[in-house]
Amino acid sequence: MKKVICVVGTFDTKEEDFIFLIDKIHALGGETLVLDVGTKATKSEVVDVPSQELAKLGNYDIDTLAESGRSKAIAAISKAAALKVKELHDAGKIDGIIGMGGSGGTTLSAMAMKYLPIGFPKMIVSTLGGTPTITTYNADNDIIIMNPVVDVAGVNSITKTIYSEAAGAIYGATLAVEKQDPQKNKKRIAVTMYGVTTPGVTRTKQYLEENGYEVIVFHATGTGGRALENLIKSGFFEGVVDMTTTEISNNSLAGEQGMCYTTTERCEGVAKMGIPCIYVPGAMDMCVAIGADPEIYKGRVEYHHNDMEIVTHFRPNASDALVQGKCLGEKIAKTTAETAVFFPHGGLSMLDVPGEVLYDPEANAVLFKTIREYADNGKVEFIDSDLNINDEEFALAVGKKMVDFMQKHYD
Amino acid sequence: MKKVICVVGTFDTKEEDFIFLIDKIHALGGETLVLDVGTKATKSEVVDVPSQELAKLGNYDIDTLAESGRSKAIAAISKAAALKVKELHDAGKIDGIIGMGGSGGTTLSAMAMKYLPIGFPKMIVSTLGGTPTITTYNADNDIIIMNPVVDVAGVNSITKTIYSEAAGAIYGATLAVEKQDPQKNKKRIAVTMYGVTTPGVTRTKQYLEENGYEVIVFHATGTGGRALENLIKSGFFEGVVDMTTTEISNNSLAGEQGMCYTTTERCEGVAKMGIPCIYVPGAMDMCVAIGADPEIYKGRVEYHHNDMEIVTHFRPNASDALVQGKCLGEKIAKTTAETAVFFPHGGLSMLDVPGEVLYDPEANAVLFKTIREYADNGKVEFIDSDLNINDEEFALAVGKKMVDFMQKHYD
Repeated sequence: MKKVICVVGTFDTKEEDFIFLIDKIHALGGETLVLDVGTKATKSEVVDVPSQELAKLGNYDIDTLAESGRSKAIAAISKAAALKVKELHDAGKIDGIIGMGGSGGTTLSAMAMKYLPIGFPKMIVSTLGGTPTITTYNADNDIIIMNPVVDVAGVNSITKTIYSEAAGAIYGATLAVEKQDPQKNKKRIAVTMYGVTTPGVTRTKQYLEENGYEVIVFHATGTGGRALENLIKSGFFEGVVDMTTTEISNNSLAGEQGMCYTTTERCEGVAKMGIPCIYVPGAMDMCVAIGADPEIYKGRVEYHHNDMEIVTHFRPNASDALVQGKCLGEKIAKTTAETAVFFPHGGLSMLDVPGEVLYDPEANAVLFKTIREYADNGKVEFIDSDLNINDEEFALAVGKKMVDFMQKHYD
Repeated sequence: MKKVICVVGTFDTKEEDFIFLIDKIHALGGETLVLDVGTKATKSEVVDVPSQELAKLGNYDIDTLAESGRSKAIAAISKAAALKVKELHDAGKIDGIIGMGGSGGTTLSAMAMKYLPIGFPKMIVSTLGGTPTITTYNADNDIIIMNPVVDVAGVNSITKTIYSEAAGAIYGATLAVEKQDPQKNKKRIAVTMYGVTTPGVTRTKQYLEENGYEVIVFHATGTGGRALENLIKSGFFEGVVDMTTTEISNNSLAGEQGMCYTTTERCEGVAKMGIPCIYVPGAMDMCVAIGADPEIYKGRVEYHHNDMEIVTHFRPNASDALVQGKCLGEKIAKTTAETAVFFPHGGLSMLDVPGEVLYDPEANAVLFKTIREYADNGKVEFIDSDLNINDEEFALAVGKKMVDFMQKHYD
């Protein structure tokens, strides 16, 4: 069966570019299903779903849309396009999707891809591709991004090679895509990790794998947490070992400008999905200072990361611990399934051990007390340990508890 | 003939991931040529060029390399890999290239792709893909980037679908790639544009096209200028109409932190290549304030961009014009072929007209005088006009002059 690529294009301004792309997909042996997401009605012959039709789907009129201003028009069309794409995907009518453009075209394309799962081939040829702004669109998903180097504004010597490659890439991706393997039937557990919690998390992961679970690791650097929460909410995971909740340090202390800022819904997905979870406040002995208001870390211990000298951390003190603990505790309290919190009094990272720069058992004591105070809803278990998060015995205790929870919840 | 994909991998840490990718490429019908760019020697059976061999090519010893520290080791190996990849490419032995990894793997891959031209399929599956850091790697080239969402650290339910898609995308790109069309034989002219110089540049472009030239537009937003200069130096263009030199405003006034900062070699490529060029100081009536030291634009007129409210421009004044003019003038003075500078006394952008917020003919007069003072090497033509840069008559004068230059230079 021929692969069908959904092409999302603004045919009012870039018809020539999209016709080249579409022809190329056909030449490779693919079929296309073309959505016009332009904010003005056109009569392009290659379009399968004209913007007039999308307009009706979104309960607006294409001829008066432009009057409401460019950003409102883009928002209205992309909402309708997202619904249409979801419908086509759910009905199995498309195998991949591609968009091209500048900031407008990128926004329209990314919004249209909003409901598509990870692993479904999606690509955008975007003039924002080589700029930091692109992370607005691909931070927590697998959209393939290509910087066209020159503007997406006409077919020329450069864009010909770019559009050809893009057609090949999205078509090739649909040929290769591997459906998730259902017969394997292993339950999936997400774990969260940071460089400084790697030994402990790795040991817990190994223990869970030995017990028949598939374990997928997320780096707790802001984008990792966003991807994690999205996947939890999509039903991808049966359990979570949230062993590195350091992103809460960023969100509660450094705020939105902080380098590791993550979704405000961080640590909330497990409660919504009713799946077992174990929390360890891993790496909450640190907060990345980049982006934070310097007032916040004034007088705090600073730490320069070894590998990337540009990254500076600071050590939250006892008063910061009240803020961190409340933020995390309130989220844990929403729990609906088996939940435990481990408190490693021997330290929250490799650097929170006697003799190391971030060692501060007093601050940790405040953190643990505060988490408990806010999290204690009568159902959550609290487990104190004298060990460090990276000690093997601690990691195994976490692993064993999780296996207990999984068996209790699913057997 | 089977397509050959060059796979660039760190087999000391990610052999499992790369074997999955390689198998998938083979299953699609492709061949692979595998480079081990790990910093430790391995004996992986899938590797064609082991890191020991790359080491010899770079005149170092793989067994002692690790002792020199991670970043030095990465630099040494990527240098050797780049030479090897160039050799393979020039000999026609590879049709595409792919790398995968975190910051180390991304650096190694991107460096290995350093000498490959635009249009040669290249892809990196990078955990930096969803972070602003990725622009370090793809700001001025067409590397296809995919954020794997989870870590590139083992084959699991998620990475299986990601690696499969990536294998398909790079393989598909090699199937589709279109060689540049030599029989067409149109000479290529680059032009530079900004939103506020669009009417003028578009008219000049149209005139040049009517006269048989192919015109490729670059957006003067920092990355556009980098791509432009790279392509000029690769011999891609026969002429340049640098009608929007506003990036010089950023470089000379806002500096490296400025939002539109570009290569320091901006406006120098044409002299190096000895090709005709026309300069117009387009949009030098503005400088994007984002990233600039607020001291620089204190007391200057500010302007808020319509479409993206986050972008603020300031109006360089007469004293700024001395800095801008010297920076641009010194570059123009290096000219080696037909060169002219047009001075539109009626204004440098849509906003530099009577009644508009950036109108300042006095500052422009200083700018023009300073450019002339530094650029005048006895060969450059200076052409004064009372018109605005966006006036049709002005745009046509620029176009006509360029056609004269092209005919004189090439006929």
